[in-house]
Amino acid sequence: MGHDAFTALKRGSATGLPTSTTTTTTTTTRGRTTATRGKQIKKTFNNLKLTILCGFVTILVLRGTVGIGGLTGSPDADVNAQKIAEETNRILAEIRSDDEPSDPNEPPEPDINPNVTYTLGPKISNWDYERKSWLAKNPEFPSHINGKARVLLVTGSPPKPCDNPIGDHYLLKSIKNKIDYCRIHGIEIVYNLAHLDKELAGYWAKLPLIRRLMLSHPEVEWIWWLDSDALFTDMVFEIPLWKYNNHNLVIHGYPDLLFDQKSWIALNTGSFLFRNCQWSLDLLDAWAPMGPKGPIRDEAGKILTANLKGRPAFEADDQSALIYLLISKKDEWMDKVFVENSYYLHGYWAGLVDRYEEMMEKYHPGLGDERWPFVTHFVGCKPCGSYGDYAVERCLRSMERAFNFADNQVLRLYGFRHRGLLSPKIKRIRNETTTPLEFVDRFDIRHSTRGGQSGL
Amino acid sequence: MGHDAFTALKRGSATGLPTSTTTTTTTTTRGRTTATRGKQIKKTFNNLKLTILCGFVTILVLRGTVGIGGLTGSPDADVNAQKIAEETNRILAEIRSDDEPSDPNEPPEPDINPNVTYTLGPKISNWDYERKSWLAKNPEFPSHINGKARVLLVTGSPPKPCDNPIGDHYLLKSIKNKIDYCRIHGIEIVYNLAHLDKELAGYWAKLPLIRRLMLSHPEVEWIWWLDSDALFTDMVFEIPLWKYNNHNLVIHGYPDLLFDQKSWIALNTGSFLFRNCQWSLDLLDAWAPMGPKGPIRDEAGKILTANLKGRPAFEADDQSALIYLLISKKDEWMDKVFVENSYYLHGYWAGLVDRYEEMMEKYHPGLGDERWPFVTHFVGCKPCGSYGDYAVERCLRSMERAFNFADNQVLRLYGFRHRGLLSPKIKRIRNETTTPLEFVDRFDIRHSTRGGQSGL
Repeated sequence: MGHDAFTALKRGSATGLPTSTTTTTTTTTRGRTTATRGKQIKKTFNNLKLTILCGFVTILVLRGTVGIGGLTGSPDADVNAQKIAEETNRILAEIRSDDEPSDPNEPPEPDINPNVTYTLGPKISNWDYERKSWLAKNPEFPSHINGKARVLLVTGSPPKPCDNPIGDHYLLKSIKNKIDYCRIHGIEIVYNLAHLDKELAGYWAKLPLIRRLMLSHPEVEWIWWLDSDALFTDMVFEIPLWKYNNHNLVIHGYPDLLFDQKSWIALNTGSFLFRNCQWSLDLLDAWAPMGPKGPIRDEAGKILTANLKGRPAFEADDQSALIYLLISKKDEWMDKVFVENSYYLHGYWAGLVDRYEEMMEKYHPGLGDERWPFVTHFVGCKPCGSYGDYAVERCLRSMERAFNFADNQVLRLYGFRHRGLLSPKIKRIRNETTTPLEFVDRFDIRHSTRGGQSGL
Repeated sequence: MGHDAFTALKRGSATGLPTSTTTTTTTTTRGRTTATRGKQIKKTFNNLKLTILCGFVTILVLRGTVGIGGLTGSPDADVNAQKIAEETNRILAEIRSDDEPSDPNEPPEPDINPNVTYTLGPKISNWDYERKSWLAKNPEFPSHINGKARVLLVTGSPPKPCDNPIGDHYLLKSIKNKIDYCRIHGIEIVYNLAHLDKELAGYWAKLPLIRRLMLSHPEVEWIWWLDSDALFTDMVFEIPLWKYNNHNLVIHGYPDLLFDQKSWIALNTGSFLFRNCQWSLDLLDAWAPMGPKGPIRDEAGKILTANLKGRPAFEADDQSALIYLLISKKDEWMDKVFVENSYYLHGYWAGLVDRYEEMMEKYHPGLGDERWPFVTHFVGCKPCGSYGDYAVERCLRSMERAFNFADNQVLRLYGFRHRGLLSPKIKRIRNETTTPLEFVDRFDIRHSTRGGQSGL
């Protein structure tokens, strides 16, 4: 099923997999002796692409160099440059390579026994009580501040440099975008660059991470997972947490797609919130068993494909597994799950990025829905991987547009905006004055949100 | 003086320029018709290096590809790969290029008149009063929270992808490191990716940015500039703001180097704090006039080189200009400047990165000085530029070590550490338990710092 898995994974991402994490899979599996043939083919394609890419860049840049009045560099400069290039490549190769000397004191990787259900860790059964008493003992770490629940936004990317060099630049822009939103709305951020669990690599990595953060941050009420390829595009909108007082999982999706059609894209696991409570730990435990890499994940994939509408044949992914769990154990879980679609907690990019100009003309930030999407999620783009389901150019352009569309909302306070949605350059939108505070009162989103609507 | 300026700029950064921002200069000036010959030579060298780098990567990756059981890809895969590569290059070129259609509504760039002193904006003279009354009117945005002054950490990097592809990966690791420190210590972050002022490009860009942030964030008491190539390496240490109650600028340096030797590296402008007050606005105004690109900056550079010990001949940089201002107008400014060297507000990397193992053996975080440096600053490395003063390999290794050294202090709460200071991989340092909260009380830095020493 190797080749099926490869092509399926490809088509799969086109229709709803969290891509940043899919990329992680690629990274993790690179160089593994246990790699399936499908993975090997994929890896070969990736390397091939990187090869050709670099060839082109070489020509491109060489043309540029010759363009600038010939090669003015002296011979030693050439030598010097060559030395630096060699060194950079050595380090690049070393950092990318997987063959680090593993610590001798370290226990060998446990072999997963397919007959024993995989668990995220020792069963914790009294978390609500433990957490409550901890909060009582630590009043300086309240779970609510001025009546607002404490939220921790969690995102991340592979530990190693992207296969596609420009990928890291967009990861940087993506976290800058999240830093801005979270500063404005008083949300803390954890950016993960590590693989906590070898078995749950790839798009499954978020499960052990979320569990770990719940247990290490009892002061946090909500843990919000957001893929690295999702950008905030409404800097004013705030999640209406009051709506979810009786729920423990908030995820974007459509109940009819979920229960009537059993569609494998009924929910999107690129952006969801878990309440820090026993129920969430239990759901994570029920969700995880299909995750372990290798035979378990491969076999589980067949079950998911057989039961979910539209799902191509490939290894089990976290999104399909959650959908399958909620469908098959509806009575057990659904009363605490809020399937949200009144705003774009996850907004599929393809339908949104071309409408930004129209939105700016007709509407204003703070709406969060199709009029001004809260989150634009670049499902299927894989900027960090060297393989994408969409034309790379369209993805990069669209991400640049989304970033600048959002950044304009941030720059407004400072009196600037981007020259265009495709331009990293900015321009003034008002002159400097001797009375700058009037603009703070008018344009600081934190003030305007308090006043309800923003006028942005 | 073109060639002088180039070689000088190179030597210069080797001995103390904020390199990330130096890189910005390179980026900004690329393709400018007004570029001096020195800049052109530099640009040509950079392109040449990128060319050769890509050549090597091509060979490197091609070898890797062939290594994996030959080219298993089908013909259409090749075509597909080639198409993607072409697209990526087009976008890369477009995003890097400077030739965006400038907005017709936009006023033309003002020509700087050398006879008129450059200013950062209209003179603001009553900021202390204005800010004070604003704070009184907006009690929900206090400048102090639980007695702690509100601090805004400001950093940034060029708007465009790095010339050296791995540079963006280290910018990502650098901001992840800052996100961790600032989450733990309740500091807000602004990450700047834009050029606010065309004239003050490069290492001067921080001046208009800091002024703008003071005026847009009256609730912020201290604005802390930190270069993108500086990493927090003591996640426990906190700046002793109480020491600076009577000061408005805190900067790392040595008074004897400053006033006795008039050394151009007496202070380092890679990490410093400004109080949000009239005095700081005035100092920025007095600091800025040497900044405008072109003849003014070039001429000012000659004055600085003539007056500062050890300064090579090159255009005026923000660090030399500040040193020169404080030396020549000591009585006017110094009583409000705190020259700090009791801990590493800026720590020069070369002397520190090889001692991390020794530090871990002998000391613990929270000291902030040579025993456990608060900040490790990679002066002269320019990971984002394609040119560095130190061997690229040594820089990348050292940055990787510094990042992991710091990350171990963060991962401890979660029960992990890096396999080695050069490894992006992590390993467990304790088993999962059913009573995780005991570890929160023991290892959450925010708890330990309250209790004074950390025991980390």
